Amino acid sequence: MNNIVFNHATVRERADMLTFLDLCAERGMHTVSIWGDEIDKVGEDKALNRLRNLGLKVSGYNRIGPFTPDGLRVAEAELERAARFDSDHIFLFTGGLAKGDRDLIGTRNRAEDTIAGLLEKARSIGVKLAIEPLHPMLNGDRTVIASLAQANDICDRLGAGIGVVIDVYHLWWDPALEHEIHRAGLANRILGFHVNDWLVPTRDLLRDRGMMGDGVIDLPGIELMVRHAGYSGPIEIEIFSDDWWQREPSEVMDIALQRCRQIFHP
Amino acid sequence: MNNIVFNHATVRERADMLTFLDLCAERGMHTVSIWGDEIDKVGEDKALNRLRNLGLKVSGYNRIGPFTPDGLRVAEAELERAARFDSDHIFLFTGGLAKGDRDLIGTRNRAEDTIAGLLEKARSIGVKLAIEPLHPMLNGDRTVIASLAQANDICDRLGAGIGVVIDVYHLWWDPALEHEIHRAGLANRILGFHVNDWLVPTRDLLRDRGMMGDGVIDLPGIELMVRHAGYSGPIEIEIFSDDWWQREPSEVMDIALQRCRQIFHP
Repeated sequence: MNNIVFNHATVRERADMLTFLDLCAERGMHTVSIWGDEIDKVGEDKALNRLRNLGLKVSGYNRIGPFTPDGLRVAEAELERAARFDSDHIFLFTGGLAKGDRDLIGTRNRAEDTIAGLLEKARSIGVKLAIEPLHPMLNGDRTVIASLAQANDICDRLGAGIGVVIDVYHLWWDPALEHEIHRAGLANRILGFHVNDWLVPTRDLLRDRGMMGDGVIDLPGIELMVRHAGYSGPIEIEIFSDDWWQREPSEVMDIALQRCRQIFHP
Repeated sequence: MNNIVFNHATVRERADMLTFLDLCAERGMHTVSIWGDEIDKVGEDKALNRLRNLGLKVSGYNRIGPFTPDGLRVAEAELERAARFDSDHIFLFTGGLAKGDRDLIGTRNRAEDTIAGLLEKARSIGVKLAIEPLHPMLNGDRTVIASLAQANDICDRLGAGIGVVIDVYHLWWDPALEHEIHRAGLANRILGFHVNDWLVPTRDLLRDRGMMGDGVIDLPGIELMVRHAGYSGPIEIEIFSDDWWQREPSEVMDIALQRCRQIFHP
């Protein structure tokens, strides 16, 4: 499965980073997506060595954010670490509104300024900045970037070195989805395509994502949009779920790969 | 408070429709928004008589939907009852995806056909059809109309007799909000403006809305957008909340009115 990537978050509760890398290599994966806090848990040298020994490359690095007024230094350190891991792109999550603040438009403007301030360094060290618009229900506390249109607008203004990641969970509902994916494709800025599913009912805003095929998202339809837009990169499996986190990581990964083979055309 | 309307849903767990109407009249309200299922509980004649005796008019009538393949007859019956209550507008909620169905685009097209099929009757009996786009997190199970842009597009295609209701809870996150409110105003199709608040954290997708002022929505900012767009109708209080439903209805209404006086310029 050369064209499938696991995001470590999918099995993070029961597999540390080293175990996760082993499980990916055992399944013939060539690429992974990783988290800075999980690197901290096992140690950077160990994590880098294991990646090298297993011949794994890094697609997405999580993450810069939430943004804070004095956070540029922290963000630059994360960017440097993403470069040491030779990551293709690093995720930006702006954070939501500060406590007691209701100025959404102002917060969005400040977030864009912060991103602009990171861009030169990102370009110079060769790691792309990735904006992943999150579901509007996460707009209060996780990010103020709530639609692909908004992410495309920001990228249009900022120029080279920044792109978008399309996660079906966050965007499947958007009536403008096909149009905005096409627009992102024309600008050659689709950096990733994340899959999972939307469960009905959804019991929690953060920790109740579904396994592909268990929900209502038209996954092959969105895959087609992304491919028609010219994206030839991997399909990344990223599931935040109390249910799946309880299960054996190897079993979760095998089920996910089987579902991907049934649903997608990677 | 001539320019404030309560939606019965705000106190429905502890006040039946007759009690609700009394509580509104005691507070000097002139208009209410009502529900068909609550009329059924007290009887249509009693409900109509109480409205007349208290001199209350009906703003919004809930509702037509969820749409079903054979639902046109039911929908027309609701429309006729909305007319008997001399309602200004009746809400349309399409429902989400049918069980096992993932064809969001097809479901949206069928929903629009259903709305088009109701429009002639609605025009002839003088009740406006109201599309209220709901939060994208409700797209799987409550409605497939997930943005104000989409609702405006539908109204553009269908012509006179149909409009939109702007509920801050569902739309506050939308980067295109000001643009789409302006667009709705130009077409003179804003039928209502609903207020409540988005709590951080939000613990439930359906029953955890906040009282105005307790959340992160820029309520005066959105009120300004709606007024600048030419809307001169009432501000409607609609809060779905297990917390507020437990409290004494008169207390909830008094707090809501006080908050409105502090926050809005009705």
